Amino acid sequence: KLELDKFKLEVKNRFVTVWQLPLEQLPLSPAAERLRYILGEDDDPPNPTVFTEMDTLQHDGEEMEWKESARWIKFEEKVEEGGERWSKPHVSTLSLHSLFELRTCLQTGTVLLDLDGYSLPQIIGINLSQIEDGLLKPELREKISYVLLRKHRHQTKKPIHRSLADIGKSVSSNTSEFTRFSHAQSRSMNDITDTPSTDQLKNKFIKKIPKDAEASNVLVGEVDFLEKPFVAFVRLIQSTMLGGVTEVPVPTRFLFILLGPSGKAKSYNEIGRAIATLMVDDLFSDVAYKARDRDDLIAGIDEFLDEVIVLPPGEWDPNIRIEPPKKVPSAEKRKSVFSLNEAGQMNGTAGGAAGGSGGGGGANGIAAPGTLLRVFPRFCGGLYLDIKRKLPWFPSDFYEGFHIQSISAILFIYLGCITNAITFGGLLGDATDNYQGVMESFLGTAMAGSLFCFFAGQPLIILSSTGPILIFEKLLFDFSKGNSIDYMEFRLWIGLHSALQCLVLVATDASFIIKYITRFTEEGFSTLISFIFIYDAIKKMIGAFKYYPINADFKADYVTMYKCECIAPDPGEIAQYINNILVYSLQHFDSKYNAINVTVLDWTQLSKKECLKYGGSLVGKSCKFVPDLALMSFILFFGTYSMTVTLKKFKFSRYFPTKLRKLISDFSIFMSILMFVGLDVLFGLNTPKLQVPTDFKPTRLDRGWFVFPFGKNPWWIYLASALPALLVTILIFMDQQITAVIVNRKEHKLRKAAGYHLDLFWVGVLMAVCSFMGLPWYVAATVISIAHIDSLKMETETSAPGEQPQFLGVREQRVTGIIVFVLTGISVFLAPILKYIPMPVLYGVFLYMGVASLNGIQFWDRCKLFLMPAKHQPDYAFLRHVPLRRIHLFTLVQIICLAILWILKSTVAAIIFPVMILALILVRKMLDFIFSQHDLAWIDNIIPEREKKKEDDKKKKKKKGNKGEEESEDEVCPCSGGPRFPTPSVIKIPMEPVQSDPQNGIHCITSKYSA
Amino acid sequence: KLELDKFKLEVKNRFVTVWQLPLEQLPLSPAAERLRYILGEDDDPPNPTVFTEMDTLQHDGEEMEWKESARWIKFEEKVEEGGERWSKPHVSTLSLHSLFELRTCLQTGTVLLDLDGYSLPQIIGINLSQIEDGLLKPELREKISYVLLRKHRHQTKKPIHRSLADIGKSVSSNTSEFTRFSHAQSRSMNDITDTPSTDQLKNKFIKKIPKDAEASNVLVGEVDFLEKPFVAFVRLIQSTMLGGVTEVPVPTRFLFILLGPSGKAKSYNEIGRAIATLMVDDLFSDVAYKARDRDDLIAGIDEFLDEVIVLPPGEWDPNIRIEPPKKVPSAEKRKSVFSLNEAGQMNGTAGGAAGGSGGGGGANGIAAPGTLLRVFPRFCGGLYLDIKRKLPWFPSDFYEGFHIQSISAILFIYLGCITNAITFGGLLGDATDNYQGVMESFLGTAMAGSLFCFFAGQPLIILSSTGPILIFEKLLFDFSKGNSIDYMEFRLWIGLHSALQCLVLVATDASFIIKYITRFTEEGFSTLISFIFIYDAIKKMIGAFKYYPINADFKADYVTMYKCECIAPDPGEIAQYINNILVYSLQHFDSKYNAINVTVLDWTQLSKKECLKYGGSLVGKSCKFVPDLALMSFILFFGTYSMTVTLKKFKFSRYFPTKLRKLISDFSIFMSILMFVGLDVLFGLNTPKLQVPTDFKPTRLDRGWFVFPFGKNPWWIYLASALPALLVTILIFMDQQITAVIVNRKEHKLRKAAGYHLDLFWVGVLMAVCSFMGLPWYVAATVISIAHIDSLKMETETSAPGEQPQFLGVREQRVTGIIVFVLTGISVFLAPILKYIPMPVLYGVFLYMGVASLNGIQFWDRCKLFLMPAKHQPDYAFLRHVPLRRIHLFTLVQIICLAILWILKSTVAAIIFPVMILALILVRKMLDFIFSQHDLAWIDNIIPEREKKKEDDKKKKKKKGNKGEEESEDEVCPCSGGPRFPTPSVIKIPMEPVQSDPQNGIHCITSKYSA
Repeated sequence: KLELDKFKLEVKNRFVTVWQLPLEQLPLSPAAERLRYILGEDDDPPNPTVFTEMDTLQHDGEEMEWKESARWIKFEEKVEEGGERWSKPHVSTLSLHSLFELRTCLQTGTVLLDLDGYSLPQIIGINLSQIEDGLLKPELREKISYVLLRKHRHQTKKPIHRSLADIGKSVSSNTSEFTRFSHAQSRSMNDITDTPSTDQLKNKFIKKIPKDAEASNVLVGEVDFLEKPFVAFVRLIQSTMLGGVTEVPVPTRFLFILLGPSGKAKSYNEIGRAIATLMVDDLFSDVAYKARDRDDLIAGIDEFLDEVIVLPPGEWDPNIRIEPPKKVPSAEKRKSVFSLNEAGQMNGTAGGAAGGSGGGGGANGIAAPGTLLRVFPRFCGGLYLDIKRKLPWFPSDFYEGFHIQSISAILFIYLGCITNAITFGGLLGDATDNYQGVMESFLGTAMAGSLFCFFAGQPLIILSSTGPILIFEKLLFDFSKGNSIDYMEFRLWIGLHSALQCLVLVATDASFIIKYITRFTEEGFSTLISFIFIYDAIKKMIGAFKYYPINADFKADYVTMYKCECIAPDPGEIAQYINNILVYSLQHFDSKYNAINVTVLDWTQLSKKECLKYGGSLVGKSCKFVPDLALMSFILFFGTYSMTVTLKKFKFSRYFPTKLRKLISDFSIFMSILMFVGLDVLFGLNTPKLQVPTDFKPTRLDRGWFVFPFGKNPWWIYLASALPALLVTILIFMDQQITAVIVNRKEHKLRKAAGYHLDLFWVGVLMAVCSFMGLPWYVAATVISIAHIDSLKMETETSAPGEQPQFLGVREQRVTGIIVFVLTGISVFLAPILKYIPMPVLYGVFLYMGVASLNGIQFWDRCKLFLMPAKHQPDYAFLRHVPLRRIHLFTLVQIICLAILWILKSTVAAIIFPVMILALILVRKMLDFIFSQHDLAWIDNIIPEREKKKEDDKKKKKKKGNKGEEESEDEVCPCSGGPRFPTPSVIKIPMEPVQSDPQNGIHCITSKYSA
Repeated sequence: KLELDKFKLEVKNRFVTVWQLPLEQLPLSPAAERLRYILGEDDDPPNPTVFTEMDTLQHDGEEMEWKESARWIKFEEKVEEGGERWSKPHVSTLSLHSLFELRTCLQTGTVLLDLDGYSLPQIIGINLSQIEDGLLKPELREKISYVLLRKHRHQTKKPIHRSLADIGKSVSSNTSEFTRFSHAQSRSMNDITDTPSTDQLKNKFIKKIPKDAEASNVLVGEVDFLEKPFVAFVRLIQSTMLGGVTEVPVPTRFLFILLGPSGKAKSYNEIGRAIATLMVDDLFSDVAYKARDRDDLIAGIDEFLDEVIVLPPGEWDPNIRIEPPKKVPSAEKRKSVFSLNEAGQMNGTAGGAAGGSGGGGGANGIAAPGTLLRVFPRFCGGLYLDIKRKLPWFPSDFYEGFHIQSISAILFIYLGCITNAITFGGLLGDATDNYQGVMESFLGTAMAGSLFCFFAGQPLIILSSTGPILIFEKLLFDFSKGNSIDYMEFRLWIGLHSALQCLVLVATDASFIIKYITRFTEEGFSTLISFIFIYDAIKKMIGAFKYYPINADFKADYVTMYKCECIAPDPGEIAQYINNILVYSLQHFDSKYNAINVTVLDWTQLSKKECLKYGGSLVGKSCKFVPDLALMSFILFFGTYSMTVTLKKFKFSRYFPTKLRKLISDFSIFMSILMFVGLDVLFGLNTPKLQVPTDFKPTRLDRGWFVFPFGKNPWWIYLASALPALLVTILIFMDQQITAVIVNRKEHKLRKAAGYHLDLFWVGVLMAVCSFMGLPWYVAATVISIAHIDSLKMETETSAPGEQPQFLGVREQRVTGIIVFVLTGISVFLAPILKYIPMPVLYGVFLYMGVASLNGIQFWDRCKLFLMPAKHQPDYAFLRHVPLRRIHLFTLVQIICLAILWILKSTVAAIIFPVMILALILVRKMLDFIFSQHDLAWIDNIIPEREKKKEDDKKKKKKKGNKGEEESEDEVCPCSGGPRFPTPSVIKIPMEPVQSDPQNGIHCITSKYSA
């Protein structure tokens, strides 16, 4: 009775943190004090990861064996009832009950810390000898020892061919359940040996366990000879390989044994699960490693209980296995509470830590442009720093490129690049009367791209011709033609001026302006570019229907009515025609047409073109129709697009092993292209194909590979061209830097930092070179650059079962870019292969690129919100913190801006397009007056850390007290958390304030009212 | 000090259930005892649903008001920080801490049960007067009362147009944050009134709250004048409308008030959430209604704590909102523990309850065929019982059909039926030389279908011609022709014999045989039918490419080379041709061809058919090609299919309100058909269209609408036809009954039960009628019947936010079926509309039907498992309990059986197809020797309850003790749980055994070891 009372008091004291009674009135130091003491010294090396295996005792008549029933690295994996299958990793849902039972067990059972054991029998021996004689009869000791030394049967995964063989076996021989079972299962030796068995060594699961891991073995079971449970918790002084006890050859450090009288297997099982879950808890495993006595362990449990998350029984079914979350809160926060020796500093430190992490987020985070682009007082200071920063990475930029993933990236980007080169080449050819054509486009892309990827600050950026430049060239050519100015020379001078201006911008570190480019501007720009991609792809597709008109009135039965005949013209027209030919051949120095005697032609044998050329006229119902091609083009276009989308999503399907799925997903575009090229070849239709120039010569015969700067235009042109050059410069600058900001976004986790100045420097230099050679100008292409980054994303390969693979960053290197552009250069020789690719397939790829680049854009997510009822909207961080109408308003402003830009782009005003993007920055500045800084921080999260802090401070001063605590915590989030994965705000249960100010808590009432 | 000790002791005692100390040694009765006392009387009417609203005190300088911060019907909805938005309903994750704090609060605060209050001021007055003078100073009383009577501001949802107007306002007038806020929010009156405000009355949220609900209001807040928290829990004797306190005009029954000193708002908030969550817990709300004193409430909390589910802090982030589960365990199980007065009976009862529910599952569950199809000793007993069972439902079968959902079902099934009628009609016409053609097919379908739907036992079954019958007819026709037997008369006699045999089967209650049709057979059959649907759809599609060959060599430039000319034959051939014409016109009594003078024809003006008819030959490159049609057909086919799939899935998207999405999903097939018919009309291509006969007359002129039974064949044929009739009977019987089993599956939750005998009776009668009229024979069509059921599924309309809509059952009625078939009948007049529907669109619908009917089939799920690595496999119940290789083996056997059936179906042996399905039952019987009953119970869960029980008993005897408890619990599941949603096994924490057998628990050690 006295003992019971003593125990009750002790129990009361231990559990006091949970109960929140006025602590200082109690005789013993509370659990937190203990933990602070043992966890306080932070100098120790971190403890190894703990792998926990739980084995339960199985009876087979007289035979007994330990059978693995669950394991934990971070999450629980359970052996399913059938006994041949690991469950999916899931969060261990415990019952409060079992945790308290476990607590009682540890309080009352044997606890041996720092046991010097080398084998299981010896450990068990020591263990049993610790128990007082009165409590355990000698014969029971032997029996317990016997039970504990039974063999261990592990759950090992077999390759599928072995399982199939087993199926065959079980079909042929109808053996009893048990024999089959023992065949199927791998068995360790009859008794525990010291060396690991072959099955253990072969077990591939070891790959999932970190190298330095130590095992903790939980053994629970019911036996009929015991009347009271036997409980032991053992920590070895040195981790030891205990033979066949653990599934994998990992040395054991902890041992928890629970043997009890029969009839309560389920309860023992739950207690085993509880200790196993505790052992893999970061904080508790620290406690377990450092505990000095039983009470430390119990303090650890109490801390765990204090942090535990509780689900009400009526709202959750305990049998649902909870999938591991994307992200778990780090144990550091929990540990930090105990890492200080003085209680008073607690709150301050927690705040400081939060601030620190926020600041850390800012350093390599969104505020990066700000810090990287500080206005340096020195001339060329930014460029110098860029080079200094990038140079050490230069070698790694090459050797890090050699990876299988690079191949898929190269193929993908290469196809994007040549499609782009051909499209823009064709359009430029149209616009400039072939002064710049497909050949120039290929050559320019290859040269500019490879040089840029080799030397630039951000080699992930892909250069390309862009829409605004095309429009500028078109206008320039028309202007030159109208005013009899030599286009090539004029263009050369504009290029030179513009290059010079770029270099001036580099020298004056003018790139600092991009720190005003917030998410608002950035997203507006990239959405616009994505829309252009999508619009162009669809426009070209619709073009096919115009180019290959479908004969809707065709009736199969009246096929005899459909023909198209070439009717010879009147003799008079023929004479006219011959005249034309002569004029043409004189103009074009083309001798081909000279010697034809038109009059003796067999008109019926002429092709459509020839017929028209010689002045014939086409008569018949089928003349203006082309069968099948339009529909086939559509099938190829849409098929490529949807196949790519499907294959890309395949990564998230359940089929096939992860690696295969990743491969399919990585090569999705390539596979879709292959598939639809194959389909096209199969049908053999004459669909429009990719046509790459095969000869290395300028598209127009009257120009060479070098444009001479003087002689053709009056001298004042050389100076006046500085004016249009200014437009080009703004265009290049904005295009280049916005793309760079997008590429260098925090989400991409780039290690090697950006090089805005260096990038612009090379764009300028290349501009001059291209101008001299009469090649198009190149600037960063947003969509393809994003595609480049997406195809180079890295994720963690091995992680504990159930843990989500973490996005590690992008494979930052120069190899893929360089190879892509070298390939583009030699595509001239690849023409025989490339000519099989139908253009609609490439348009499909374009469509995919446009749609895919929309996906990462928060603006787009916000647009979708318009269509969703509030209750179905996804749980975006900004939705939790900003009223929906403010978000909608912000989105509306963006949509209006975009609409204006789109209209501008479609008209002649396109030339002032770059200026409009500058205007976007202004619009954003004006939004500061409409939206609160708090809202903007969440929606448009690009406020440099320092400014934000100030804002916060101001606010706090205004409305102090009331909600201060809550808000300040919440507002740290937009900076430290990414924009797409909301970082949970830190809810700290205020444990200490209760201690330090006991008169203030609700708990004080307890002592007075309890009468 | 004395008081503290007393309190500690009390605390100890209360919490003892959680601690699992030997209870009987303690002076006070434990929590469970209390609960058993108050919950024991089960005669009371169930308590009303509790709606909980939590309001927190907001300070605005001097102003204070209560602002709604969360609400609960079943799950928690929180007002997001922005203050304008309800979060999604989620499971309330509490901290253990706050629950213990709440417990302390209830222990120490004012608890007033059965207060007779009519208004808030009065209630607060009584409340405050209860507190002893020494504990609360008079001036504080006034202040508290003042605070509690501040106005309440609720979170109400505004229509979107008002929010948009607000946006407009906020753009134009840049008012301060706060003014805007107060505009935006709806406000209740300045002080609490007795009548609900208009905002309350307008609140649409009331729809989600059950009619009889009562409110529980939780008010928490921090105030600066208090030094100790003020806590009150009030239960009113009669629920009363407290004016503007609650968001909706629901009378308040409970009031929880927590006011505390400032600085701990977060902690108060958590306590408020804890009590709110408790109040919506089924068991605790019972306790709250029935509690006699404070201790009862605390016992309720302790019970709640005991059942709570705990997530370890390292494996879960408390800030993740957990989506409500599909199904929560019913509180009945928890309640049942307390509904008995004697502790000893506990375990027995729990087992009994489980057994009872298992038995219940059997009654209306999978075992239904067994119970409904008992072999009755009486002649026609089954038929009689069927009629007796269905007759009372007959009126409701009609009035229940009038629902908007029926329209979509009718459209869907109608299209399926006419497509089927036309397809089978066409094929039958080919097979029987037009003795039965499209017209007969339409007439037969309409007549048989509508009669069946009107009178049969299971009106959800849709009759149709099926593949095996088609094959039989084809063989029969060939046989008749080869042996000079009159086909129609022979067929009539076979039909009559078969009808008679069917009636004999009905009379002898032979349908009992289908109790041997387990999931194995059923799924094999329906998978086969699905495959046939898919196969046919694709085959027809590929047929289009053969029927409309594509000219792959077409070059647009050489369009002049492509023509097709009709060349006149030699004069000799013309003479021959004239001869042919004469013969033909004599044969066909067709005068059309007589008067043509072939020799004077303009051959170039003839169509393809005419040209060939008159003996001309077609010369030219384009003769054998048909442009565009094949590709267009493909686009229509594939487009319809994928559009339907996409729209069907749209129900699960986030866009648009739920009702609109449901509408789109319900009408997905209709909308896709409309869309692609529109596309087809837009292109105007001559794609093959649905051709419905327009005249009501037999397809073949030499037959009438009645077949005379005698005269054309020798007499012995009348008898001999009984033999082929036997084959037909088996075919009809199997086809009909397997489909009926599938339709009557337990998952469909049919209320009106099945009518196997009655169904077969009508099939037999209709067979006789059809035979006399020379119409095809009809039998239940699996795929269309499943589609019919799917389109009539009902779900709960209103449910608490977050609760999943429950599948209620199928709209069982006769209206849709009858209308479908009536429509089919009058389709003859709908021809002008129907002729716009291209056949490829209908093939797309067929493909969709085939694929969709595969989806519900467990066999198909198991096939997919072959391709999934074990760790990615979904959490099917059978996977948890049966080893994977056994499952694979079972699936393999099924695949082999299917393959054999498929091969049979494709050859002449198709005629013994029905016999093979009988063989399938045999194969399944043989599997009993390979698989254990336990495995089969999970994979092939159709073992009648009684047999299973026996099996279980046998097993238990074999291996008693060890895993007995676990297994017996688990094995109840396959019977009571559905095949797709595993019912969680009931884990009961064994609380009572500890009490009743204290010497046996591990807790006994506590008292001895704690020294």
